Amino acid sequence: MNPDDVAKAFVEHYYSTFDSNRAALANLYQDGSMLTFEGQKIQGAQNIVAKLTSLPFQQCKHAITTVDCQPSGPAGGMLVFVSGNLQLVGEQHALKFSQMFHLIPTPQGSFYVLNDIFRLNYS
Amino acid sequence: MNPDDVAKAFVEHYYSTFDSNRAALANLYQDGSMLTFEGQKIQGAQNIVAKLTSLPFQQCKHAITTVDCQPSGPAGGMLVFVSGNLQLVGEQHALKFSQMFHLIPTPQGSFYVLNDIFRLNYS
Repeated sequence: MNPDDVAKAFVEHYYSTFDSNRAALANLYQDGSMLTFEGQKIQGAQNIVAKLTSLPFQQCKHAITTVDCQPSGPAGGMLVFVSGNLQLVGEQHALKFSQMFHLIPTPQGSFYVLNDIFRLNYS
Repeated sequence: MNPDDVAKAFVEHYYSTFDSNRAALANLYQDGSMLTFEGQKIQGAQNIVAKLTSLPFQQCKHAITTVDCQPSGPAGGMLVFVSGNLQLVGEQHALKFSQMFHLIPTPQGSFYVLNDIFRLNYS
């Protein structure tokens, strides 16, 4: 797969996991991972998933609008930049968001998320 | 300066240069730099600045809404995630945008932009 296809596959996997079983996102982070969620910095897979599972909504559905991807340097990492809509159950309007991931290759041939920055796009 | 202050200083410098003398942005990129502008990938400082200086507007003014920053790995790099508004001269409404930069330290104690991804937030 070329990098753009890898990025798209990651993004689809990430948001379908988020929408169906948020706790399983723990597999995509490691202890050195960092999430900045609406300006709040959270370090480590366990704390990140605790944050994501404690968000004040149960059911949601992400719809992706754009996925951009670039190699992040010589170590085989990848930067992925996403824009999309987040629909919460019971809410009329979807929330627009932008999110970036810095993916690092694992020895198993997969990737983990080293950096994750999420922002709602307020209008 | 702590990393958040470095990120803010970079962002202020970047957009004030963009708004006053776009061609001078060449100093912030190198040959290995990549810009993805609204989905179009452009490689190298010269091509990036050619793209930025050929955008179909002459005068503009960026206003920053949020700046998030994380260390990008062991090499002292930094990821910077920006949201803001882009006001074009003669246009009534500002355009909302999100942009990320991957900054790499230089031997001179400064940073250059290795990765740059820009997207307008269409509403």
